[in-house]
Amino acid sequence: MDRRSRDEKMRLGAFFMPTGHHVASWRHPDADPDAGVNFQHYVKLAQTAERAKFDMVFLGDNYAVRATHPEALRRSAQYIANFEPLTLLSGLAALTSHIGLVATASTSYNEPFHVARNFASLDHISNGRAGWNMVTSAQEAEAHNFGREKHYGHAERYERAQEFTRVVLGLWDSWEDDAFPRDKASGQFLDPAKLHPLNHKGAHFTVRGPMNIPRAPQGYPVLVQAGTSGDGRRFAAEFAEVIFSSHLTIEQALSYYAEVKAAAAEFGHGPSDIKIMPGLNPIIGRTADEADEKFELLNSLIEPVVAREILATFLRKDISQYPFDGPFPDLEPDAQSSGSFYNWVELAKKEKLTLRQTAFRAARGRMSVTRGSPKQIADHMQEWFVSGACDGFNIMPPYLPGAFNDFVELVVPELQRRGLFRTEYEGKTLRENLGLRRPASRYAVPA
Amino acid sequence: MDRRSRDEKMRLGAFFMPTGHHVASWRHPDADPDAGVNFQHYVKLAQTAERAKFDMVFLGDNYAVRATHPEALRRSAQYIANFEPLTLLSGLAALTSHIGLVATASTSYNEPFHVARNFASLDHISNGRAGWNMVTSAQEAEAHNFGREKHYGHAERYERAQEFTRVVLGLWDSWEDDAFPRDKASGQFLDPAKLHPLNHKGAHFTVRGPMNIPRAPQGYPVLVQAGTSGDGRRFAAEFAEVIFSSHLTIEQALSYYAEVKAAAAEFGHGPSDIKIMPGLNPIIGRTADEADEKFELLNSLIEPVVAREILATFLRKDISQYPFDGPFPDLEPDAQSSGSFYNWVELAKKEKLTLRQTAFRAARGRMSVTRGSPKQIADHMQEWFVSGACDGFNIMPPYLPGAFNDFVELVVPELQRRGLFRTEYEGKTLRENLGLRRPASRYAVPA
Repeated sequence: MDRRSRDEKMRLGAFFMPTGHHVASWRHPDADPDAGVNFQHYVKLAQTAERAKFDMVFLGDNYAVRATHPEALRRSAQYIANFEPLTLLSGLAALTSHIGLVATASTSYNEPFHVARNFASLDHISNGRAGWNMVTSAQEAEAHNFGREKHYGHAERYERAQEFTRVVLGLWDSWEDDAFPRDKASGQFLDPAKLHPLNHKGAHFTVRGPMNIPRAPQGYPVLVQAGTSGDGRRFAAEFAEVIFSSHLTIEQALSYYAEVKAAAAEFGHGPSDIKIMPGLNPIIGRTADEADEKFELLNSLIEPVVAREILATFLRKDISQYPFDGPFPDLEPDAQSSGSFYNWVELAKKEKLTLRQTAFRAARGRMSVTRGSPKQIADHMQEWFVSGACDGFNIMPPYLPGAFNDFVELVVPELQRRGLFRTEYEGKTLRENLGLRRPASRYAVPA
Repeated sequence: MDRRSRDEKMRLGAFFMPTGHHVASWRHPDADPDAGVNFQHYVKLAQTAERAKFDMVFLGDNYAVRATHPEALRRSAQYIANFEPLTLLSGLAALTSHIGLVATASTSYNEPFHVARNFASLDHISNGRAGWNMVTSAQEAEAHNFGREKHYGHAERYERAQEFTRVVLGLWDSWEDDAFPRDKASGQFLDPAKLHPLNHKGAHFTVRGPMNIPRAPQGYPVLVQAGTSGDGRRFAAEFAEVIFSSHLTIEQALSYYAEVKAAAAEFGHGPSDIKIMPGLNPIIGRTADEADEKFELLNSLIEPVVAREILATFLRKDISQYPFDGPFPDLEPDAQSSGSFYNWVELAKKEKLTLRQTAFRAARGRMSVTRGSPKQIADHMQEWFVSGACDGFNIMPPYLPGAFNDFVELVVPELQRRGLFRTEYEGKTLRENLGLRRPASRYAVPA
């Protein structure tokens, strides 16, 4: 079934982990092992993504050193110690001109005033290329860095997230687009009638406003979300313009796509107001065999204790007491459990995996490692896109720079030949390139 | 009295307000009136400062739109709506290579974890050029943006600031300098023995740590402070490495200099561990007359209601009820009063000024407008520096880019000819250029 017009293009994000998404990527022969604080490493990646006409660079974030077993910690490079994403993207903004810059910031351990202002500032610095990935913080270790003994429960996290996001949107409307005549002759710098305090008083936040930065070039920086839980989906339906999803099968993706777009319609959002972009971890060879070899090289670098603790993080469970070569244990969900708990339990039971097999599966590539020749990767992407399982993909290179350079050099031209991906940027702002409307201020008089 | 060795150089900071420090600078014929959100404006300024071998660019900050009379607001460009400084400096880091990048961040309405991490991230992005100007927030309008009805009282602000800063310093020592062997062959990425949680529990903050970014290239970003109150001076004596002061007379500056360095000695800091840099607002002409003309052009652009409200902000008092052409009123200090209240009251009484005269004096240039020919400006700076009234200056151009370009083109070469200022950067980091030692981690074993 072809749900796409001939002219519609897929959207591509580049989701960079310092040395790549594969847990052993820092040990790859070509890796910069100091990538987490190597600015030039990111400059090269962002400029490569821009040459390939990617919509955006995407960076995750959290507020703690990964809490894990000391023997796994010693051998771990991920979620340990890296750049803060907003400062990093501000630096990259200065050395790029078209690519979007999307950073993660938590609604759990931030002030909405700072988040609203920082993203508006990045949007001004980049002339309209900022996006905010709205997340809730789920780790106990994060709570401990902000004066709390326990992190917020799941429902409370999403209540806070909803109120936080409404405050941020309100602050982004503090000034109307034409609030600053800046007329030297008359001495009128601003028009006080176009300045709007927010006067928000809610269960979690009290913020008077207005914000001390002009309205962003995009009106609002693009709103991005990645939650897969029930609360996360409701939140996404209300606010998200880009959704980074993770699905193993096209059937799951098709059903999720239809469900989210229907839920969003209840908030007045049309189908084209939301771009759903599943994560894709590509490993590319000139042939399928070469791709397999590249994958096996990476996998040979994983240590068992690291694999076990990666799975424990996905499950949000201590699993060190279970026999590693025994069957996957019977685990009960609890208040910590997120969507990935259910996904992994389902997978392990369905395929009758041992704990070790599940752990290595988790460590090797999470939910959707896709490997093959450029044609095979493009076929896969085309099938998902054309059938309406997604609006594009968030490319998560397993190792850097190799897996990303391969994608750019081998897959992007194939997608372009097939008419599935742009050969030039359509606009200057991230919204223009994604095909998202620029939101009007809530105070603007309709023209 | 020459307190300086022949080799000692003065330090220069460039403190940029969007269109300049003069309140009417946005109306100057050459001004970019949109400077507050014009990234290229700041790029040019920072690159000019770097070509002139300045130690650092310095940016102030606050968290609210200036609260003022609507008629003054309409005509005001300062403290209204601008870039957030850390994102802006991160962008400038990418386009400069040697100049220091100092941003203001408040200890009143931030989390120490975020401040520690953001400045460490800027230090990594810039390869060791970050500095943190530690301030307390004093405006009611700022409190209202962070869930508080009232801002913290003066003493509480400084108690919080002290604890906040200790937490930040502790978080900056989370990882020892050599905590990351990143050894691909053995699989050891980090050494857990060189990772140190903070476990801070205090009156205002509870922060377990560790922080999720490696130790900064400078160990700690440079600590900058500008407080002139009693509490501010004690805080500066304990923590500050650079102090931005503001004094009208060399006598005041000499006595302040001696007092601060003596107070700092009680915390184990030697005289060269602290650089005292008074603000200097230069207006330069090829002749003194030309400088006067430039100043009068700016002053002719000030509107009375703006001048009155500028003074009200310095005094932290509503003065709209007093006759504008009457004598300066008898004002009593209160809990809001800072050092500048006393300075302005003293000045008005000493010179028997009317309220209007005081207001225009405040609006025209605050505490130390210095104008003249390049030789006159250089003489003034040499006198202060050589006599031991300061270690350098924080240059506050009254209008941009003109007043800064004049300083760079006319005064800097004169200072260099006299051997008072560098002709090449001594080092790569801000600490190296300022002549400040790199602090060792508190956990490092002395070599």
